[in-house]
Amino acid sequence: MRARDLGVRIGRMEPGDLNAITDVAGVRVGHTTLIEGDGPLRPGTGPIRTGVTVVVPHDGDVWTEPIFAGAHRLNGNGELTGLEWIREAGMLGGAIGITNTHSVGVVRDALIEAAARAHAMSDGVWALPTVGETYDGALNDINGFHVRPDHVHSALAAASGGPVPEGNVGGGTGMICHEFKGGIGTASRRATRWTVGVLVQANYGARELLRIDGVPVGRAIPLSDVPSPWDQVEALSARATPEGGSIIGIVATDAPLLPHQCARLAQRVGMGVARMGSYASHGSGDLFLAFATGNRGLSRNGGEDDPRRTVELQMVVDQHINPLLEAVAEATEEAIVNALLAAETMTGRDGITAHALEPDRLLAIMREHARLA
Amino acid sequence: MRARDLGVRIGRMEPGDLNAITDVAGVRVGHTTLIEGDGPLRPGTGPIRTGVTVVVPHDGDVWTEPIFAGAHRLNGNGELTGLEWIREAGMLGGAIGITNTHSVGVVRDALIEAAARAHAMSDGVWALPTVGETYDGALNDINGFHVRPDHVHSALAAASGGPVPEGNVGGGTGMICHEFKGGIGTASRRATRWTVGVLVQANYGARELLRIDGVPVGRAIPLSDVPSPWDQVEALSARATPEGGSIIGIVATDAPLLPHQCARLAQRVGMGVARMGSYASHGSGDLFLAFATGNRGLSRNGGEDDPRRTVELQMVVDQHINPLLEAVAEATEEAIVNALLAAETMTGRDGITAHALEPDRLLAIMREHARLA
Amino acid sequence: MRARDLGVRIGRMEPGDLNAITDVAGVRVGHTTLIEGDGPLRPGTGPIRTGVTVVVPHDGDVWTEPIFAGAHRLNGNGELTGLEWIREAGMLGGAIGITNTHSVGVVRDALIEAAARAHAMSDGVWALPTVGETYDGALNDINGFHVRPDHVHSALAAASGGPVPEGNVGGGTGMICHEFKGGIGTASRRATRWTVGVLVQANYGARELLRIDGVPVGRAIPLSDVPSPWDQVEALSARATPEGGSIIGIVATDAPLLPHQCARLAQRVGMGVARMGSYASHGSGDLFLAFATGNRGLSRNGGEDDPRRTVELQMVVDQHINPLLEAVAEATEEAIVNALLAAETMTGRDGITAHALEPDRLLAIMREHARLA
Amino acid sequence: MRARDLGVRIGRMEPGDLNAITDVAGVRVGHTTLIEGDGPLRPGTGPIRTGVTVVVPHDGDVWTEPIFAGAHRLNGNGELTGLEWIREAGMLGGAIGITNTHSVGVVRDALIEAAARAHAMSDGVWALPTVGETYDGALNDINGFHVRPDHVHSALAAASGGPVPEGNVGGGTGMICHEFKGGIGTASRRATRWTVGVLVQANYGARELLRIDGVPVGRAIPLSDVPSPWDQVEALSARATPEGGSIIGIVATDAPLLPHQCARLAQRVGMGVARMGSYASHGSGDLFLAFATGNRGLSRNGGEDDPRRTVELQMVVDQHINPLLEAVAEATEEAIVNALLAAETMTGRDGITAHALEPDRLLAIMREHARLA
Repeated sequence: MRARDLGVRIGRMEPGDLNAITDVAGVRVGHTTLIEGDGPLRPGTGPIRTGVTVVVPHDGDVWTEPIFAGAHRLNGNGELTGLEWIREAGMLGGAIGITNTHSVGVVRDALIEAAARAHAMSDGVWALPTVGETYDGALNDINGFHVRPDHVHSALAAASGGPVPEGNVGGGTGMICHEFKGGIGTASRRATRWTVGVLVQANYGARELLRIDGVPVGRAIPLSDVPSPWDQVEALSARATPEGGSIIGIVATDAPLLPHQCARLAQRVGMGVARMGSYASHGSGDLFLAFATGNRGLSRNGGEDDPRRTVELQMVVDQHINPLLEAVAEATEEAIVNALLAAETMTGRDGITAHALEPDRLLAIMREHARLA
Repeated sequence: MRARDLGVRIGRMEPGDLNAITDVAGVRVGHTTLIEGDGPLRPGTGPIRTGVTVVVPHDGDVWTEPIFAGAHRLNGNGELTGLEWIREAGMLGGAIGITNTHSVGVVRDALIEAAARAHAMSDGVWALPTVGETYDGALNDINGFHVRPDHVHSALAAASGGPVPEGNVGGGTGMICHEFKGGIGTASRRATRWTVGVLVQANYGARELLRIDGVPVGRAIPLSDVPSPWDQVEALSARATPEGGSIIGIVATDAPLLPHQCARLAQRVGMGVARMGSYASHGSGDLFLAFATGNRGLSRNGGEDDPRRTVELQMVVDQHINPLLEAVAEATEEAIVNALLAAETMTGRDGITAHALEPDRLLAIMREHARLA
Repeated sequence: MRARDLGVRIGRMEPGDLNAITDVAGVRVGHTTLIEGDGPLRPGTGPIRTGVTVVVPHDGDVWTEPIFAGAHRLNGNGELTGLEWIREAGMLGGAIGITNTHSVGVVRDALIEAAARAHAMSDGVWALPTVGETYDGALNDINGFHVRPDHVHSALAAASGGPVPEGNVGGGTGMICHEFKGGIGTASRRATRWTVGVLVQANYGARELLRIDGVPVGRAIPLSDVPSPWDQVEALSARATPEGGSIIGIVATDAPLLPHQCARLAQRVGMGVARMGSYASHGSGDLFLAFATGNRGLSRNGGEDDPRRTVELQMVVDQHINPLLEAVAEATEEAIVNALLAAETMTGRDGITAHALEPDRLLAIMREHARLA
Repeated sequence: MRARDLGVRIGRMEPGDLNAITDVAGVRVGHTTLIEGDGPLRPGTGPIRTGVTVVVPHDGDVWTEPIFAGAHRLNGNGELTGLEWIREAGMLGGAIGITNTHSVGVVRDALIEAAARAHAMSDGVWALPTVGETYDGALNDINGFHVRPDHVHSALAAASGGPVPEGNVGGGTGMICHEFKGGIGTASRRATRWTVGVLVQANYGARELLRIDGVPVGRAIPLSDVPSPWDQVEALSARATPEGGSIIGIVATDAPLLPHQCARLAQRVGMGVARMGSYASHGSGDLFLAFATGNRGLSRNGGEDDPRRTVELQMVVDQHINPLLEAVAEATEEAIVNALLAAETMTGRDGITAHALEPDRLLAIMREHARLA
């Protein structure tokens, strides 16, 4: 059950066929979901509620063929490796990884290993992978470091176009959003002749602030009614940050954008997040990446011996970029709603439970606010 | 008639006494409003619908005593001078000016002149003023360059604490927002022991996108009902950019924030703008500045001969910064609504008319969406 | 007498025919030099030692046809307007102005006026001009605001390709560099099939730190030998900042660079500045802009009615960008040396004198350090 | 044998007692050096020429007590994790790691593990570690991923104040600089009442461009005389990038700097690099971090229950920051020279050899250029 299935239609633009980041041709998504054990937290043992999601940005050899990309930081209490290279050269190389905060390193190095394996361990293979994270320590044994290199390789092997599993999957497995169960969500928009897709790992925000299509849903479902997992965390330890959390947003488009135009799209992820009610709290790692597949062959086509010093590109004329900008804001908002709706109630370490946002309840609230026919 | 007078209450925090940027002690605002002539545009003659607004950031000698500040660019199709210095040194010196796009220069140099005058033309006076703008060429003879240095000096002389005139005043005189008449607006919030105030010059956005407190007001008042000034502009010339325009946002707080914390507040202005429905279109100059008066005496207290190499500061601990961040998002949203409500219908050059947002109409729409008792 | 005429050859690359920014086809430079009066400073009257320099970036209609550009701040104690637009859209529109600190505004607005005049005051003309500055208050009556709009128009009218006058001209008229007389300087490099040109307005640095091609020239010509104008300033008032000052650097290339690549070139200006001995002191406004004329037609070719949504571009492949990067560092270093050699001894307000760097003396020092045959 | 032992004195400021980053009180450095095997490259087996270096920034609990920090990117072809947090909050938490390009991940996660271990695996421990890298694949089996978590823990255990081993140690073990053997180097400067220390992992640059204290040493020792390891790499495979490589620079000071002031210091590392002859080539990851220990107790002193909302700080007044800025440029230059002088000739995988810069030879060249008595 996704937002549109309920009749919740964010914005004024139309989604692509799948209403997913995979509507952008060539983009593939793979998840490895790790759910194991129950009961009290025993660091190194579990319970495990985590995973890794990979986004493969195009249908070529992603390890050697970069595409244009740009990034934006709305709030930097998080990690997204590889950004210095993306900001400098405007290029994304390899698959993108998303996982929990304490597993960024293993995923990063495993992506280099994947690149090396794909090229017979040639000494010339080299990479600066892009790996993002949000914190799942409320439900998961995060200091158990349960994500292993093989989990990355299996997510890569599983990556496919087509509908994207959402909710409690991959990197989103143990995430919490607006004090409901959160996780992975996606949506897309057709923008003139191009498509824009967004995938989020949503793990941020206070209940009270939640808005869906402008309706104050969070106020209508108070914590006294559907309790917050963070209250359970607080009862166990000092650390309870419902207004912390984070959101990673990945934007894909087939439009021929230049790197600085990609960065502009990346910034618009934050506008979708703002519409959901977030103010990007201090504890939030709100980091966004946008890539554009509309230009290919950005490196020398013939390798080191290719004498050509320039390549030919297309660029979206600035006067036509608005639909792409608007699409990001809309698709982000809808991707978060999709994550909330897809995520099922989960009980993790120490019995901490994050409840799902019930579709029927949401529908009733939207109707009260004159938003559904 | 301001938003709260109508019962429209944005967010969950309480405003200050004036619900204005002047709730921050020492902050003063002054306007020079230039309205003259009617009829066809004759460049250099009129009609004139423009002005200049100044924000004086503290009650000391603003020309020689800087305070901490930070900035953010949501979309850069605009000008806000002085930002390189603010980004480098984290300091704001002098009064801030806001005017039309083609008068930034005259206002900038006049602010230097004001500094020099205030110090008997001493050769040691030196300044890098901060002056922002939005484009009022739909209503105003913008290529007539009607803002003169004396208009800056009179705005400075008029600057005062107390309630801030909103709508068609100062730099906001000829501005258009969501295809209604826009202009200057302000609001404030109490954030724990501190106050946050926001002042905007609102001149952006398409009607269809307008949301007020999440309610799709723009869709409820279509252009077929209350026409857009941009359609008149388009009928006269090729240039018609309802989705362009811009918004300048100035944030003041009495909290002792460091420069990088000010920049974080500045970025949250964009979150309020996003909630209004903007996606920060290509043609928009969405530039935001935040300053904090909670630390003073940042330069050597005793001048060049003062041997002290350090000064003492206070800093808001990061764990307590959230209310300040949230306050900016809320106050920005409310400041824009206040600008829309304060602005009266205006007819400018070539008979082009920007209509006011009618309070009664807004009230009815809010009620239909279950937002008012 | 320029550096190469003396046998001082900076770096390992070859200059263009003119060894000037005008080696980049289409680039034109114009100066208005204002020298008037002698004796004690009388604010508003003089003495006047200032001016304005314009760099016209290509041979088309610069007011309506933007080209790609990027910027870098080494130290932000200065102003370069228009940077928010350049950072957002990667585009430079119009001619660039360089003047004194207190005349940035008048030059900015005059450039808009020039754009409007060139287009019959059409209401659709709109601009966010790029104007930089350094401080000439040691020699010039800077609070007299002697630069007027007509000086900008005459600099534009005078702009031409061909050799660029250096030293005490245009915006560089009253500038001081390493406590010698400074001002405007330029140099260029051939970088594979392209050309890179740099123009500086040099007004920074302590004598002791001056290095030319790595040779500690400043130590070899101490202040006890050739006095500093700043010592005279200090004797008159408290303000004496030999280590302050600033440098504006403009980079032009005919290579087809994208905006982010332009920004990379802009940052390399600072590497040339560093080789001269600067550490980019707190008081320095070291702001750099690079533009690339290798792509044209970046806006819709047919105006608003042109249905095309994309344009075709060329991009220098990253593996071939190194010569362009190196060229900027080399040409910057040489442009500063050229400014120092071209500038003649000048006496300004209050009899303050900035002495020229004597070519013979420089030659002798270079020989002592085994640098000339 | 370090630069000063040879009589090479960079700049005009005095070093601290150790002329090392450890002159800043509380700063400790630890290395794990991995050298094993010889002969042909067998990925996964060796030969191994790599390691990890840690910089522990203060004498408190670095895992829970952050200090102010700032960063700068001169060229982004590299990785330095944790920068989004440092840019957002201006704070460095934990020890800094430096290693090879393909081991950043394992070092990052191991630093989190170290933090968790130090706090009994409390679920509240959370970290965004700062780990940098340069590429040692010319000498090392970089795709063998030989750095393991235990190597990080042993480097931490070994971290101490006192003299810092330089050259072929820690992360610098397999590095190449100006086509000589490179690696770790350090230097410091006294700046008024404070100390500034710099540590580099130097792995960049072409021979021909090498300058030491302005003297063109690289030209005086051509590749025909002392061969380049990159020529051997090129003979084995297509990948040979003498002008690539990278340099990581870490700046420490005991001055009470704010985060934005730290960022200013970080940018000056690039000025030292420029003086060495680098132009920051496309292939270079030139990433710099500066931290300041002069303010402590930046988080709530009493933990979550501490009701205080502000902390007291000291700030270096801007008018006194110049010696700190200059110190960074000087110390960086000297740290690189120290790295070159300390590094001994090393033969790595496939018999590839990076030769040391011979002190006697350097001395002779300096004398020829009138630089030593």
